[in-house]
Formats: sequence, C-alpha cells, structure tokens
Amino acid sequence: MSVNIYIDHNFYDHNAYGYENHKNIKSDDCCIEDSYNSNSESSKNNLSVNNPNDLVYLTNSKDLSKLDHVSQYAPLKGEDRIDYSNYCAIVIDVLRASTTISTLLELYDKVYITNSIEKTMNFPNSIKMGERNGIKIDEFDYGNSPIEILKDKNKIIDFTKNGGNLVLTTTNGTRVLNSIISDDIYVGSINTAEAVAKEVYNTAVEKDKDIVLIPSHRCGDFAIEDYIGAAIIVENILKIPGHNITNQLEQLIPLRSTIKFDWKNTILNSKSGQGLRDRGYSYDVLYSVQENICNNVGKYNKKESYIYKV
Amino acid sequence: MSVNIYIDHNFYDHNAYGYENHKNIKSDDCCIEDSYNSNSESSKNNLSVNNPNDLVYLTNSKDLSKLDHVSQYAPLKGEDRIDYSNYCAIVIDVLRASTTISTLLELYDKVYITNSIEKTMNFPNSIKMGERNGIKIDEFDYGNSPIEILKDKNKIIDFTKNGGNLVLTTTNGTRVLNSIISDDIYVGSINTAEAVAKEVYNTAVEKDKDIVLIPSHRCGDFAIEDYIGAAIIVENILKIPGHNITNQLEQLIPLRSTIKFDWKNTILNSKSGQGLRDRGYSYDVLYSVQENICNNVGKYNKKESYIYKV
Repeated sequence: MSVNIYIDHNFYDHNAYGYENHKNIKSDDCCIEDSYNSNSESSKNNLSVNNPNDLVYLTNSKDLSKLDHVSQYAPLKGEDRIDYSNYCAIVIDVLRASTTISTLLELYDKVYITNSIEKTMNFPNSIKMGERNGIKIDEFDYGNSPIEILKDKNKIIDFTKNGGNLVLTTTNGTRVLNSIISDDIYVGSINTAEAVAKEVYNTAVEKDKDIVLIPSHRCGDFAIEDYIGAAIIVENILKIPGHNITNQLEQLIPLRSTIKFDWKNTILNSKSGQGLRDRGYSYDVLYSVQENICNNVGKYNKKESYIYKV
Repeated sequence: MSVNIYIDHNFYDHNAYGYENHKNIKSDDCCIEDSYNSNSESSKNNLSVNNPNDLVYLTNSKDLSKLDHVSQYAPLKGEDRIDYSNYCAIVIDVLRASTTISTLLELYDKVYITNSIEKTMNFPNSIKMGERNGIKIDEFDYGNSPIEILKDKNKIIDFTKNGGNLVLTTTNGTRVLNSIISDDIYVGSINTAEAVAKEVYNTAVEKDKDIVLIPSHRCGDFAIEDYIGAAIIVENILKIPGHNITNQLEQLIPLRSTIKFDWKNTILNSKSGQGLRDRGYSYDVLYSVQENICNNVGKYNKKESYIYKV
C-alpha cells in the first residue's frame, strides 16, 4: 500500500474552511501579533477592553474567563470539524506549543493540555504551564517556554515521580487538535522530526492511512515556522529507506523549497520568532529550530485531553 | 490603501472547496496524467469506455459530446462558485492555455474561449484551436500549442484582419475562469508576468481590491508550473517601485521559495512538462518558461466568453 502526504491549509487560508467559520470575529480579537508589536507606553494609556494590547495587562487580572474568551478562537465543533479519520494527522506549532510538549515528554510520559486558563488553575496536583501573548500567566508555574522548563527539569521530574501532573494551556495548538477528527493525531516539532516521521509513517502503513501535516498558524494568520516544521518532518519521512511515497512529490515542492536555503534564519525573522525575541525568548526560538534533539513522539488522547509518549 | 496578495488553493487541494464538489467523480475521469503515462500498446488492447487512455483515440471519433463529458470537470455553478468580487484574480495555466492565449493576444486583440469542443466546431468564421490530453483535435486548425501558432502567425493575423475569429477550447483554464466571480479576471503566464503584474496591481490600487493568484492545476491535481507562474508574477508585483504590499510577505515565502533555485528545470521535469516533452512538445515547454517575452495583458469578458487585450 502506498502512503500519500498532504498539507492542510485550513488553519490560515483566508477563504478556506477554518477561516470561514471565524470570519465574523473581529480581527482585534486575534491579538498575538498585535501585542507583540504594541508600544507599551501607548498601550498603557488605553485600557478599554476592546484594545487587544490590554491582554498583556489582563494577565495580571483575576478575570480569567475574560482572558480565555478574548485571546483565542474557539475550536471547530461538531460537524464543522475536519474529518481526518483516514489520516495520521501531525499538528505542528513550532513556536512554541509543540516544542514545549516535546521537551516535557523527555521528562515525563503525559502532558494534559487545555485552552482554558480556568481549567488549568483548577487542575489538581499539577505543575501549571502556559501564557497568553508571550507572557507567563501570573498564577502559573512556567510560561510556554522550553528553556524555562529545561532549567527546572530535575524539579519537574521529581514532581511527576511523586504523582504530580503536568498541565499546559495553549491557544492555537489546542484549537487545532480539537478541530479535527482522527484516532491518530500526533504532535510535530522540529526537535522530534525524525522520531515523529518514523512513527507516523509506520502507523500509516500499518493502518493503510494517508498522512496529513497541519501547520497550526496563528489565529488564521500564516506562520512560516509551522510550515517549515512540516517540511522538515516530510524530509525525514522521505529519508525512510524503502518508503512508498511517490505520487505527491510535485505537490510537496513548495513546502520542501522553504528548507533548501537558510530556514533557521527564516524562522528567527518570522513574525512569531521576532515577537518572541523582542520579549526576551531568543533561546526558546534557537532551541525550537534544533533538529532531532528529542527522541519522543507525542500522541493525542482526545477523550482525556492529554498528549502521551508513544 | 494597501493591497494584499493571496494564493488560491481551491483547485487542487484534496480537502478544499473545489475538490469537495468533485470528489465523487472517479479519478479515472481525470485522464491527462494517465494518458501521458500510458503505454500505447496496452491502451490499444483495451478500448472500454471506462479506460481513460481511450480518450487519446476518442479524439478521432465523431462522438464529441462524450469527449467533452469525460475529459474534464465541469466548472462550479451558481452559489458553489468562489466569490472573488473584492479581488483582482489572475488565473494561471502555464502549460499551456495561459501561454497560448498570451501568444494569440500578440497577434490579435480577442480570443474566444470555451470548454466545449462542440461549441468550438460551431463557431462561425473562426480559427479553431484546442486539444484533449495533449493531442490536437482532428477537426481543429491548431492544437493548444503556442509554437504551432507562432509558425503560422502571419496567416492568423491575415485571417483576423479579414474579420475572422479565434476560438480556443481548454479544459482546466475555462473551468477555473467560470468557477470564480469577479469583474477583474486576468490571464497570467510567465511570458507576460511583468505586464500582468503592473496592470493588475494598478487596477487593485485604483479599485481598492486585493489580488488573488489562482493556479489552475489539473483535475484537482497539483501542477507546480502554475504555482511557479504565480510566484514569478508575485516577484514582478514586488518589483513595482513604491508598492504598498507588506503584510502578506510571510505567507508568500513558500511560493517565492520555489523560484530561488532552478525553476525552469522544475517545470521541464514536472508531470505536465514531462508529458508534453514525451509527446514532442518540448519547444512549447521551453517557450512557456520564458519570462516577459510578451507585453500584453489578457482580461476575461465572462458574459461573452472571450479574453481581450487590455
């Protein structure tokens, strides 16, 4: 049986499925880029709740439900979800949800994920991780930062050895995971590209499925780092000896072209990369572009909302 | 006013709009690639009407309506059409409809187009051009070959000077032109990239529209030459002094990456390029990848089904 590889365009394309469901949401509701580029002084002078820049300050507020609402799109629901039942799906959010999850799975074999700050706050016996707009949430233990996590890795390992849970709240990543239907949903990062490529390819062959790579992007806006992450995973699939992928190669040329020159620099200078660097997370960006430094594969258990190490 | 540039994914994406409307059509109905790759001997041994390879032989048949039906997808209709009213749309079918039209517009200012061989046959006082599956239709004057047309260019010019019409039947090109809604639909080719880029950009600014580039692809299958054609037109837009396109550049990286190395070779070795070369149309392929050798811009008059020189 041959395996086909596809790239999903639903989560950024201005006229595709995912966007269509959200087009009536004001663009101001989608605030990550805006807050990255905001001028702190002018933001401070305008604290109306309609100003997306406020979110940076709202993280100091106790009104967490408002923060949940404003700072993300909801996932697609019911029949609106995208049916990838016949696919092994790889969801990619390089900066930084996928990379953070890959890092955590090196320390422990299960990470609960949610898009709700409130749910995270109420999660029993847990290390709480996450942020909104590149800023750690005050009540949480860590931001969405693999480097912060690695600095405390022994502490985190000890906590899990004593029965503690890890909970990560993400926006785009969780939205995409819950917007698709498949029994085989994986987390893809550049750090785990080879391991994910091999596991997913073998599962696809075994179950006679195709493979779809899903760049998460940001609030319907294109994020080149997720597209490049998909390209690196594809290259690792195509390196598998004796693979039987032949008929989608022309379609993959644009994807694969992005990594034929200095793609690390492309990511460093992307909107997301630049935004994180401006906020002092340069090491996270540099860490996120390191190929195959982790050897785990994360798979999604949708029923119980966690990623587990295969 | 700023102008945004988008790439349309509707006409090849396996789970996007255009395909969704056609997914119940058997893949055998989509025959261009198959017939390119067919072995003539084995095809001759199997003449059942379900065999796509038969189409090569059906071109010698008088049953033209059957040929029309089998050899193409129908365009989207009514509400299924894609609404690009707020866009200047550039439809790109490099091998070879766009290139043939660009070539014809150097000779005369109007080319009627249709997807129906029967309509072409009944068109009064006309030079009839077109083919199915890379083979000229017997009853027609020329195939879909810019080189054939150029060889007879004086004859064609004389014919039009005496009041004659030019009619071209195409499959993918016409399908896409009729599947979208816009008052500003242009034909894009590599031969006319700079002229089209300037005309479309100026129109977009004047009418406060965005620009969408639409690779036609083939029967829902990805065609890299159309994607590269879009990339070259985008590069020519971005060369316009003082252009105000800024916020879609990250989204355009994959497209633009395809022409950062030897893109002419990519087209020569594409499925379409290889198929045409195998059929003896190497010069058409080589001609189609020549940048800016024509200086005309073709625009679509949907009501009367012709492309006219702006």
